[in-house]
Order: sequence, then structure tokens, then C-alpha cells
Amino acid sequence: MIPRYARPEMTAIWEPATKFRIWYEIEAHACDAMADLGVIPRANAEAVWKAKDVDFDVARIDEIEAVTKHDVIAFLTHLAEHVGSDEARFVHQGMTSSDVLDTTFNIQLKRAADLLLADMDALLAALKRRAFEHKDTVRIGRSHGIHAEPTTMGLTFARFYAEMDRNRNRLEKAKFEIETGAISGAVGTFANVDPRVEEHVCAQLGLRPEPISTQVIPRDRHAMFFATLGVIASSIENIATEIRHMQRTEVLEAEEFFSKGQKGSSAMPHKRNPVLTENLTGLARLVRSSVVPALENVALWHERDISHSSVERGIGPDATVHLDFALARLTGVIDKLVVYPDNMLANMNKFRGLVMSQRVLLALTQAGVSREDAYRLVQRNAMKVWEEGKDFRSELLADAEVRAALTEAEIEEKFDLGYHTKHVDTIFARVFGEG
Amino acid sequence: MIPRYARPEMTAIWEPATKFRIWYEIEAHACDAMADLGVIPRANAEAVWKAKDVDFDVARIDEIEAVTKHDVIAFLTHLAEHVGSDEARFVHQGMTSSDVLDTTFNIQLKRAADLLLADMDALLAALKRRAFEHKDTVRIGRSHGIHAEPTTMGLTFARFYAEMDRNRNRLEKAKFEIETGAISGAVGTFANVDPRVEEHVCAQLGLRPEPISTQVIPRDRHAMFFATLGVIASSIENIATEIRHMQRTEVLEAEEFFSKGQKGSSAMPHKRNPVLTENLTGLARLVRSSVVPALENVALWHERDISHSSVERGIGPDATVHLDFALARLTGVIDKLVVYPDNMLANMNKFRGLVMSQRVLLALTQAGVSREDAYRLVQRNAMKVWEEGKDFRSELLADAEVRAALTEAEIEEKFDLGYHTKHVDTIFARVFGEG
Amino acid sequence: MIPRYARPEMTAIWEPATKFRIWYEIEAHACDAMADLGVIPRANAEAVWKAKDVDFDVARIDEIEAVTKHDVIAFLTHLAEHVGSDEARFVHQGMTSSDVLDTTFNIQLKRAADLLLADMDALLAALKRRAFEHKDTVRIGRSHGIHAEPTTMGLTFARFYAEMDRNRNRLEKAKFEIETGAISGAVGTFANVDPRVEEHVCAQLGLRPEPISTQVIPRDRHAMFFATLGVIASSIENIATEIRHMQRTEVLEAEEFFSKGQKGSSAMPHKRNPVLTENLTGLARLVRSSVVPALENVALWHERDISHSSVERGIGPDATVHLDFALARLTGVIDKLVVYPDNMLANMNKFRGLVMSQRVLLALTQAGVSREDAYRLVQRNAMKVWEEGKDFRSELLADAEVRAALTEAEIEEKFDLGYHTKHVDTIFARVFGEG
Amino acid sequence: MIPRYARPEMTAIWEPATKFRIWYEIEAHACDAMADLGVIPRANAEAVWKAKDVDFDVARIDEIEAVTKHDVIAFLTHLAEHVGSDEARFVHQGMTSSDVLDTTFNIQLKRAADLLLADMDALLAALKRRAFEHKDTVRIGRSHGIHAEPTTMGLTFARFYAEMDRNRNRLEKAKFEIETGAISGAVGTFANVDPRVEEHVCAQLGLRPEPISTQVIPRDRHAMFFATLGVIASSIENIATEIRHMQRTEVLEAEEFFSKGQKGSSAMPHKRNPVLTENLTGLARLVRSSVVPALENVALWHERDISHSSVERGIGPDATVHLDFALARLTGVIDKLVVYPDNMLANMNKFRGLVMSQRVLLALTQAGVSREDAYRLVQRNAMKVWEEGKDFRSELLADAEVRAALTEAEIEEKFDLGYHTKHVDTIFARVFGEG
Repeated sequence: MIPRYARPEMTAIWEPATKFRIWYEIEAHACDAMADLGVIPRANAEAVWKAKDVDFDVARIDEIEAVTKHDVIAFLTHLAEHVGSDEARFVHQGMTSSDVLDTTFNIQLKRAADLLLADMDALLAALKRRAFEHKDTVRIGRSHGIHAEPTTMGLTFARFYAEMDRNRNRLEKAKFEIETGAISGAVGTFANVDPRVEEHVCAQLGLRPEPISTQVIPRDRHAMFFATLGVIASSIENIATEIRHMQRTEVLEAEEFFSKGQKGSSAMPHKRNPVLTENLTGLARLVRSSVVPALENVALWHERDISHSSVERGIGPDATVHLDFALARLTGVIDKLVVYPDNMLANMNKFRGLVMSQRVLLALTQAGVSREDAYRLVQRNAMKVWEEGKDFRSELLADAEVRAALTEAEIEEKFDLGYHTKHVDTIFARVFGEG
Repeated sequence: MIPRYARPEMTAIWEPATKFRIWYEIEAHACDAMADLGVIPRANAEAVWKAKDVDFDVARIDEIEAVTKHDVIAFLTHLAEHVGSDEARFVHQGMTSSDVLDTTFNIQLKRAADLLLADMDALLAALKRRAFEHKDTVRIGRSHGIHAEPTTMGLTFARFYAEMDRNRNRLEKAKFEIETGAISGAVGTFANVDPRVEEHVCAQLGLRPEPISTQVIPRDRHAMFFATLGVIASSIENIATEIRHMQRTEVLEAEEFFSKGQKGSSAMPHKRNPVLTENLTGLARLVRSSVVPALENVALWHERDISHSSVERGIGPDATVHLDFALARLTGVIDKLVVYPDNMLANMNKFRGLVMSQRVLLALTQAGVSREDAYRLVQRNAMKVWEEGKDFRSELLADAEVRAALTEAEIEEKFDLGYHTKHVDTIFARVFGEG
Repeated sequence: MIPRYARPEMTAIWEPATKFRIWYEIEAHACDAMADLGVIPRANAEAVWKAKDVDFDVARIDEIEAVTKHDVIAFLTHLAEHVGSDEARFVHQGMTSSDVLDTTFNIQLKRAADLLLADMDALLAALKRRAFEHKDTVRIGRSHGIHAEPTTMGLTFARFYAEMDRNRNRLEKAKFEIETGAISGAVGTFANVDPRVEEHVCAQLGLRPEPISTQVIPRDRHAMFFATLGVIASSIENIATEIRHMQRTEVLEAEEFFSKGQKGSSAMPHKRNPVLTENLTGLARLVRSSVVPALENVALWHERDISHSSVERGIGPDATVHLDFALARLTGVIDKLVVYPDNMLANMNKFRGLVMSQRVLLALTQAGVSREDAYRLVQRNAMKVWEEGKDFRSELLADAEVRAALTEAEIEEKFDLGYHTKHVDTIFARVFGEG
Repeated sequence: MIPRYARPEMTAIWEPATKFRIWYEIEAHACDAMADLGVIPRANAEAVWKAKDVDFDVARIDEIEAVTKHDVIAFLTHLAEHVGSDEARFVHQGMTSSDVLDTTFNIQLKRAADLLLADMDALLAALKRRAFEHKDTVRIGRSHGIHAEPTTMGLTFARFYAEMDRNRNRLEKAKFEIETGAISGAVGTFANVDPRVEEHVCAQLGLRPEPISTQVIPRDRHAMFFATLGVIASSIENIATEIRHMQRTEVLEAEEFFSKGQKGSSAMPHKRNPVLTENLTGLARLVRSSVVPALENVALWHERDISHSSVERGIGPDATVHLDFALARLTGVIDKLVVYPDNMLANMNKFRGLVMSQRVLLALTQAGVSREDAYRLVQRNAMKVWEEGKDFRSELLADAEVRAALTEAEIEEKFDLGYHTKHVDTIFARVFGEG
């Protein structure tokens, strides 16, 4: 996890203190359930709650673990130091370490998902605001990096909104995937712990009981979770790539906000580099790199092996922390993006009229010219614009074969921008449910 | 796509003839909608349906494409050869190639998903049948490859069922993701084609209109689709790994069905190798290899670039065809898996009683022995079994310190297998909704 | 393997007929060695060569395999049909299928590597020719997509040359990795086949004997091979990305060659899209997708499992065929790339002088101005160019504080392009070993 | 980077203090070279060395960076605080940040590679020692997890030695790849800095000058570096997988060393789990996860974008630190691995004689029986062993058809283990260059 790309709220989820706190809650709730079932004395269950307000001593637990080489045992030993070793002797009874570890990991992922969902809400709000702001700001649409037909900046924001909205939906599903807990014992048979203990703990912690576990919660859930983060990261790259293109010197249709004190380059003070979106491109690669190991984690041996654990110690914090940072950074970029409508118009007019060729082609066809002939006519005039810098409209008006099919007014009408934006409201209604 | 791992129904989806057939239907339905809107003459729309029963000539289309270097134009040219070039002149009007290509790709993925869902139904049925068959077949549960506590073969099948059931659910969601079509023109503005054309075509073909597209349908949808296939593949690897372990010489708790005529090895005729599940392990890697390129496909430049296309020509067929094959193969493996309950018992008893150590530990704690002392007592006797081949139960009965806490009957009771299977019904009810 | 992105020479390497031919040669050479060692009769070894000119009947072998479910046995049975079953009875003696399969796979990879090396030679030649052609063609260098300082088109070609030359070197090493063969029997102990048989077969086929094998040749070799292909693919993406940027409408410093008959788009006839380099970008993703499964193939169980096999049936042909195609396509793109020096100059002058800010900054520092002050002075004038469209040189000349440090001549000199190209010869000498 | 899987020496390479120290050395050497060339005053170059023994104040630099938002400028500002702002004013002259950053990154990777090479030497020594120790310790070789033919434990160690020796060689090549430095200015033209500065700095720091750079050192070098780490990680997984298999309860041919105080499981005190090799399996996935982002980093835009930077801040430390830890952990595992020769023999004899079937098959063929008949004879008897628990040797001796071809002595001889180990010396000589 790279501190430079981390925010405190998400980082806190992955701190040892948080982890031990969750362990504690699982153990305490489990004791309650066991007392309810008459398996352990009520007094012992209640005693565990004496540690309710304790901030567990991470260093002390590490110290014990250095001896026992087992983290859960170390924690339980430390807990007994607070609760009293006699009172604590029923803690963890019938349970296995993974009951605690896996349920905790899922709680951490669930909390991380909640933060990410909030991040996405902020991003969606920014995208929506900018979409409506630039609903009618015309710019040239490009395929293959080549001018195609006019579109609007609002549509660009709107499609990123729609994509992120899908991602939000996916993330909710991914969160649902990992909202399970398991207290099912060494191989998942509940031999030593009643299923009702699991049910109680999960209910207290906002989880569903894992319908069938082994020693561990099945890792296909986590594979799906991290795969979803990888898709979201790829969408971040998608938006970042668009902005990087918009900011390049020759295009300059938008720029990342550049604060007054900021220095772009030690060598070239005039430069304003899209470093935030370039950074987001890199972060997307990083987040995505968690997908394959998460997939490789699914096939554990028999009722579990521990190969997944080191992977998750890495990708758990890394993917969520960096994605949280990236979403927040992207929200800032969108929110403050400096848009240059004048440059958009200037770019579109670089080859005046050429982008209207499709309309002319269509008009010719509708006027009865065969598709092949219409194509030839349009291409002939387009090539003059392209190669000789001529004006497309003028060339068409001067082309006898074209004029045989289309009147001057019909040709002129093809160069009206309103033609291209007439369905923007329809699309906005589809995306935002409003006009 | 490797023919050896392909089945005809899935392969057919990806054949040129299928593709052209879908292209045709899109164009024909679009013409209908345009005629309804009064944009093109009704007669021309109807004329297109003259080709309704035509098997398009793939070789002829390839021939035209060799000249035009554009596949959709080649197809339209060929279509005109059937419909008549005058009648066909409104076909594809206002549309762009990607309208056809992307909508087609999604239809192919949707059909592929339908086959995969059917595959999964068959697999689920086999897993369920075997789960109930072996609900009470006791075998040792293993963590880290080491004997832990007893479980049952039915629980093994049941957890694979639950995992694949989750995967089925994921696949339905993934299918929903890609069930969209777009007929929105060169940059997605519907400048030259009314949105109602898109709506009509999608309705006819069982798709939802893409709320906002550019020249292409956004690729985050496909990223999610292929990521889901990657998760399913990983679950296949998970099941395959279990079976490979079960079949290894020293374990031999199950074997892949071995037909009479089959030769296992040219050199060692006694060998019955789990080649099907090993093969599934490899196929899982192959299917999974489509995930990263699908993620890399999301960030297209501006309103589209065509970098995704070659990727999808590969992973589209490869991932679906191989996953289809793998699911079917796995279903066969599960269906015909030869299970050896006797070997399961023999394995479990290899270190007689040692697997019961957890229960003894718990009993000692409950009898008032401190956790640390109980651990020490159990470990002391366990080590004699491990290192000297002693019998765990006898050692415990002979250990004065143990006997000070537990009676003979209490110790004997710890070796009852029924203790470990008492919640199997509960778990089955969770997984299958029945007992 | 996608036929559209395949060339016949590479495809031929992976055809069944080629495979069977190699199998035959391995078996025949092995018989020779065994006859030399007196292990089998000389006559039987010689008899095998009767099939020297036979084109093995792939369909017939498939037919036999359908029964035996074992490909090598099927081939041997078919071979016996040519050689005589009595004469053939010593063929494959003491060998295991993998001896043949793995040695064959390595021969195929070696041949593929040879084709790829030739591809790279052609690409290197094209890059070198274009580098010298445009050695002095000045264009603006860009970092972050933003104008930085002048460079030359020749340097762009030269760095791609250097990168591909490194890749050629890597590929030679990767080829060396897989130039081994193994005839070591069921678990690699040579129990049933003398090591000298392996030595003879390898010598005949241009391979090194694998120093220690199990049933298979270790897969770290292949992991390294495919990882190297992944690096080469990434370099292809690197070059393709540069060209895609150069061709975008606003930049237009170069274009892929566009043949007369070619249609760019069904809808917009004026468009000339960089579809070849976009395609190369996608192919790079495809080739790269073989890296992870190749890495996952390394950890086979004990002396082998067969999980790697299906993976290699996929990535073996796919990665080499698509990389071969991509290299050839890229060579064509480079060879025929239409370069527009005038546009390069026009782009560079878009913000006249601004790209020289670094030089001015340096001159100020050298004239005794503190680094912070110099930065402030340059930034102040640069911002006028950026925000108000002023001319950088004029602004500097009119800035009293600047002029206090630098004379008019000193300022003028900073705008000399020759300053930036003065080390091009040095760099070319480093790259090409000549001036 | 996960502290739990980190060792101090490797971690130190990636600490800010180390980074700033290298920055300083680059700048100081560059000043020397510029003074030699007469570009800056000798006194100023010498003044920089005043900071030679300074431990740069990381917190102070961070503080400055918080304002300038540029790390190199922050460092230079801080350096001036030590050297004097007047004396320091020529530092970094004509250079660009990446000159410092990229050269530094390569130095860090080079140092990391040196540590990894030392790690591998230790691992190779352990593997070699254990190989000779168990050169003649017979165990059963397994393909598909099924008993095949005898091999020796020494051969197992020897093949891991050979694989790691190849990896060592690959790592040396990978290290060579990144042993370059660049001081070539904003776009790599040396416009503002003489190539001889680069040459001097590189010579002082043990690097080669990058023949042609842009603003950055080309990232194909790093792609190759991390790909190589990915291959090494996969080999670690390969060895780890073997040990995990050996330790599983039913096999128990070896165990990871288990210290007295260590607790295997909180629930099952008898368990000795192969947690180190399972952990190595997970670490292999983590290290491997750096390969794809490193490949994606190659295609930077034009003369550079900064997307690679965040990726490298992650994978640079993560991959090297975790690989260093993994190699050291594996060395410990190998060094102290508890090998059980008796269990190896017991396992091999589980189906007494069956593993000799290949030899019998061969003998029958050599005695004139057709391959098909021999196969049938062997299979017939093998199946009795497999299905009825018979003894293979006895069955063969009692099979009239077999005896018609082979004498009793000939059959008995087939069960001699020495037959399988006769070439161990040859293989050892190939691997270790000695007997």
C-alpha cells in the first residue's frame, strides 16, 4: 500500500487496531450466543464485555505472537490479560482461527465497499453536474482519434456517469457477495460450535451466515469482489484517458485544474501537465493487478490452505485504498476540470464541413443516388478538403454532379449543428431519468 | 479457439454464417423501423426480407471484403446482390458499422451465456445428486493438506454446488450486462438515425437499448462479462483440484471414471490418471487469460478506437467455447466420479483418533482445565501418536492428568463420528432448501 | 488462433502434419541411437526410415486416437501401418509420450522464434531506414502529451529501433531457453532409455539435452519464453500508440499508408483511421494474455501433471502466430508511414517560442539569477503566451527584469532549433554504431 | 509492501532516505562533469560535496514538497539549505527530473537484484547440499499424482537446483537490462546537458549510459525485469507445491521444520501444517501480480507520460521485497526440511511392484511380444493389483502367457531398484558438473 495514494478513513480499516477490535466483537458476540445456548456460563460471556472499551495493545499482541507464531492465539492470550484468564477460558470455544479471520476480512471488505460506494456517489454527483453544465457544449466526436461527427461535452460526461453508475451497481453486488460470516469450526461442520452461534454473530455484525463453509469462507466471493474493483479501475482509466487526450497541446479542450502555487515541471514552466489523470491511469493498473491473484486464490486445497492469506494481506488494503484514493482524485478532477468550449469549436472547424460528410452522403442516397455513387461523390470532395485545404461546403456547392441531386438549401442545411444535438435530451432522459 | 476443447453448439455461435445472419436481422428490423417512421419507403423495407431464408455466402463476402477492406460494406454489397441494389439502397441508412457489429457481438455473448447457463444447470444437477448420494459418507476434512476433523463427501459436493450456484447467479448478472444493443450512429448522437429505430431493433432481438453509447457499446460491460467467466473458471479449477487430490495414489478416495478401452499411459498401463480434471485446471487458466485483455479494452480513445476488436475476436469465442467445454466435461466427471467410501474411512483412521484432538481439547477446557494446560495435555498425547504410532484414545485413557479431568466414558464419547455429522442436515437445508 | 491475424509460414508450424513429422523424426533418430547402443536391432531402426517421405494421414491418426484416447499411441499405431508392425515394434521403446511431445513443442517454439527473429530483422531494417531518412526532421517532443522541447522524427524511429533491438536480443535468449529436448523416460531417470539416445536425438534436431527433466521439460523455460513475447508485444503497443497519436486529426504528423481502393468508414468517407496501429494495440493485449497462464504452468505436481497441455495448445500457436502477424504488420506500417514534416513544424510553432522556456530558464540561471527568480521570470512570460496568445520571444525581449540579465542576442539565440539537434549524430552513433 | 514479508536490507533500498542519497550522488557527480566541461564553475561543483555526509531530512523535504508539489524541486531546495543557495544554483542545470528519478530507480533495482542474487546463491547452496545428501534416497516418481517409476529425492532437489540456477542466470540478465542511467534532458536530446555528463555520472554509479532515452528510460527494460521476477516467483511456487504435497498426511515424505514452541493450530494440536510453503505459494502470486502492470507501463505517450510512476512506486518495492523474503524463507525451508526416507519406501511399496509395469512391458516387447499384446498382458495383471490388492510380481510369475515370454529370473530382475537409479550420477554431473 503506497501511503502517497492513501486516505485515512480507508487506511484505518486495515490497521491492526481495527482488526483486533473486530476480532474482539466476534468473540464476544459468540460467547453471548453460547451462553444463550447454555454451552458456557453466562458470567463468562458477560465478563468478555469488560474489555468493551479497551484499545488493544498491538505491540503487546505482536510480542506474544513472536512466541506463539499464531496471531489468534496471541490475541486471545492478550484478551485474557484484560478479562482475566479464568473468565476468558471459554472464549473462542469450539471455534477455529479462520472463523475469526475470515469473518473479520469480510467485515473489512464490507466497510471498504461502503466507503467506495460513497466515493462513487460523490463522483456521480460531479459527473452529473458537469454533464448538465455542458449539455449543449458542442465538440467534435472522434473515432480512431479522427474527427467524426459533432457531439456535446455533456454527452461525454453523461456516458461516464452511466458507466460509473453501472460500476456502482456492480460494487453493490460485489459488496453483497462478501457480506457473509462463518463460525463453523475446523472443517465447517459445526461439530464443536452450534450453527446458532454463527447466526447470532452474523446478525450482530450485519452479515449473512455463509450457507456452507469449510474452514474458510469460499474464495470465489472474494475473486468476484476484486474482479469488480478491477472493472471499476478500468473505467477510471477510461475517463482519465479522455481527459489526457483533451488536455494535449494540440487539442486543449479541457485542463485539469492547476493551482496557483503548483509547478508543472522543473524545466518547462509553461507546461500544465495532466498529471492527475496520468496518475489515475497508473493507479488503475495497480488496482487491476489484484484481479489475477484473487482468481488464483479460489482453488484452495481441500478444506483450506493458507496460500490466500498473504495475497489478501496485500490486495485487501492495496486495492481498496488505492481505488478509494483514485475515485476521490477523479472526483476532484471532474469537479474542477477547466473546459474550453471555444477550443472545442475551433477544433471542430479545423476541416470545416468535413465532419458533415456523412449527412451529405445520406442526403445523396435519399435523393436517389446509388450508395456507391454517393460515396464516390462525397469522397471526391472530401479529399479536396483533406489534401488541398478546401472548404467542404463550397466544394459541394460547386460540384455539378452533387448539385444535380441536391439544391443549395439542402446542402446548406447539412451544416447545421442543431441537427446533431437534437436527441441530447432523449439521451439525458435515459441516463438521468430527466431532461 | 482450440477445436479439441470445443462443442458444436457454442462454436456455431461464432461462425461467420451466424454473424452474417444476425447482421441481416439487425439491418432488416432497422429498415422496418425506419419505414414505420416514414424515413424510408415501406417497399424497400419489405424488400430486405426477401433474403429472409438466404444462407449468406461467406466466401463471396470475404471476396468483396478483400477489395473494400471493410467487412460491413462487403456484407451490404452482398446483401444487395440478393435483394437488388435499388431495393437495398436504404439498408444501413444513418447507421454506422459498429451499430451492427456491437449489437451482434452482444447477441452472440447473450446466446453464449444461455448455453453456459444450461451447462451450469446440468453441473448443478450432477453436484446435487452426488451430494445427496454421499450426504453421510464420512471422510476426513483437511486443512493445509493435513487431517483435521471428519466431514462428509456430501458436504464436499454441496459446497461445490453452492459455489457453482453463486456462479450461475453471477453469470445471469453478467448476461444482463451485455444484453444491450445500440443503433446510435457515428458518435452515438442519433444524428442520422432515430432512437426509435434502436428501440425497435432491440425489442425484436431481445435486447435493451444501450442508454448512452458512443460509436460503440461501452466496454465496461464486456469487462464485467469476461471477469465473471474468469471467476467461474477459477471455481472449476477449485473443484478439479479437489478431485485431483482425491485421486492421487496415496489418497485414492475417488477416481475419474475410466472407460474400458481407454489407455492411461503408453508406458505404465496400471495408471489411471486424473487427466480430465488436470485438463480442466489448464482450461481454467486459459479462460481466465481473457480477463486482463477485457479489462484493458475498457479505455478506448474518445468515441471509440478499434483496439478492442482483435481482442474480442480472440476472447469472445475462446473464453465461451472453452468454458462451455469445461463445464460439460466437469459435469461428466462429477456425474461419473467413482467414489471410494472404504478408502475414505481407511485414510481417516490412518492416525486413529488424532483427528479427535480438538474435541478432547474442548472437553478438557470445559472440565475446568485452563486453555494452556489443556493444549499441553492434548499435544503431549498427540505427539506420541504422531511420532511413535500410538493410539490416541489409549494414550488419553492412560494419561493420569487427563483422567483427572475426564472419565473413561467422556473420553470414549469423543471418538463418535456422529458428533461430526450432526449438522449436515442443517447445512443441506441451507444449501438446497431441503433436508 | 484468429485466422485473420495469421500468416501461413507460422501457422504451418502448428499444423498437425508438422507435429507428426517432428514426432516421426524424434522416434526415428531415437531408434538409430538405440541401434548404435545395441539395444534394438539395426534393421528395425533402419526400417523406420522407410516412412521418411510419407505424409502422415492426420485424419487416420485422429481416427485411431478416437479409440485409444491417446495421441502418441495413435501415431505409433499409424506409423506401424507404414513401417510394418513387426519392424516398428521397437519404436518408442523405453520412452514416454512426453519425451516426444515436449521435444516437439520445443522444436516448434524454436522454429517460431526463428520466424519471429526474421520478422524483427525486417522491422529493424524499416525502422533504421526511416530513422536516417528523418534524422533531421524536427518535431516537438512531448511529455504528458504537452509540448516540451524539439526533437526529431529520426530520434523517434531510432528509439523504437533500439527498443526492438533489445527485444531481438531478448528473443534470442528466450529461444535459447527452449532449445532443449528430453528423452528421459517416465520420470526422467533414463531407467529404460540410455541418456545417449537423448544426446543423439537432440544433436540431430539442433537441441541441447535437457540437463535434468522429469517426465516433462521444466516449464520455467516456457514461462520465460512467453514472458519475453509479452514484452515484445508491449513494445509493439508502444510504437503503435505513438503512431495513433501522430495521426489524430489535431496532430496529423504522420498517417498510415492508405491505399486508393480502401474505404475508411461506411459513413464518413473523409476519414483515414489508424486502424492498423489500433489493431496492433489489440494484438499486443492478446499476445500479452499468454504470459500469466504460462507463469501458472510452472508449478506442475511432482514429476508432471498435464494441466499445462491445454494451455500450451492455446498459447503456443496463438502467441507466436499473432506476434508474427503483428511484427509484419508493424513493419509495413513503418515502411510506408506517410510523414508530414510541415505539420510537425506547424504544430511546434503553435505556441511560438514557449517550448524554448527551458533554455531561457537556464540562461537566466547562468547569468547569475537565482533558480527561484529565473523560474518566476520565465513562468510570468510563459503564462502570457499560454493565456493571452502572446509571442514568447517578444515578451521576453520586452521584460525589463529579463533584459537586465540577458541581451537581445542572447535571447534570440535561444530560439535556434539547431541547438536541440546538435547531439543527434551522437545518439545515432550510439544506436546504430554509425553517424 | 507487507511488513510481515519484508527483510530490512531490501526494505532499506526503498526508503526515502536511500532515494534522496542517490539523488544527491547523481546531482553531485553531474556537477563534477559539468565543471570538467567548463559549463559551471568548479567551486560550485565542489561545494555540492559539502553535503557528502549529510543525512537528508525526509520530513523537511516532504514539507517543501507539500508546497511545490514537485519532489525533485523540493529536494533541490533542501539541498540548497545545506550547500548554500548561491553555491547550489548550478545543481541540476540542464537536467530534467526524470534524469534523476529514472537513474535512481535503476540503481535501486540494481541493488535489489544484487540482494536477490545473493538470496539465490544461498538457496542454490541449500538445494545442492540436500541434493547430494539424498542423492540415493529412493522415492516414487509421480505423474498426475499417480505413482509412476522410482526416482530419488536427490533428483528432486537437483531439478529445483537446475531451475533456480536458470533463474539466477535470468536475473543476471534482467539486472543487466536495468543497469542504465540517463541524463539527457527534457526529451532526451541532450540539448541542455552534454552527453558526457551522462557518461560520467553512469561511470561513477556503475551504470551504462542509456543509448537513447526520451524524458525517461524506456520501460521495456523494466517490463523484462519484472517479468523475470514473475518467472522466479513461479519457480518458488513449483518447489513449494512439491513440499506441500510431500507433507500431506497420506504422503508424509517430508515436513517443514517445526520448532518446539510453535503451535500449529489453535484447535488441533497434533497438526503440523506446511504453512511456510503455502505462504510461499501466496507470495508467488503476489510477486507475479507485478508482471502485467509492468507490461502495461511500456506504452507511454510520446516522450513520456507519468502513468508508470504510481505503478512503480507499488511494484518496485513490493515485488523485490516479497521476492527477497520468499527466497530467504524457501532457503530456510529447504535447509531444514525433515525428510522421511522410510515413508518414501513405504509409499512406493503401497502397490508393490505395480510401478515396475513399464519395465515388464518393455521386457515383453523385447522378448518378441507385439506391443499391443504386451500392453494387454501387463494391463491384465496390473488391474488385479489395483482392484484386488494382489502382488504384481506374483501375478506375473503365475501368468502363463507372460511366462511364455519371460523366465522367472527375468521377471525378478525387473523389480530391482538399482535399475532406476543407475543414471543418477550422470544427471548429477550434468547439473552440478560433478558426480
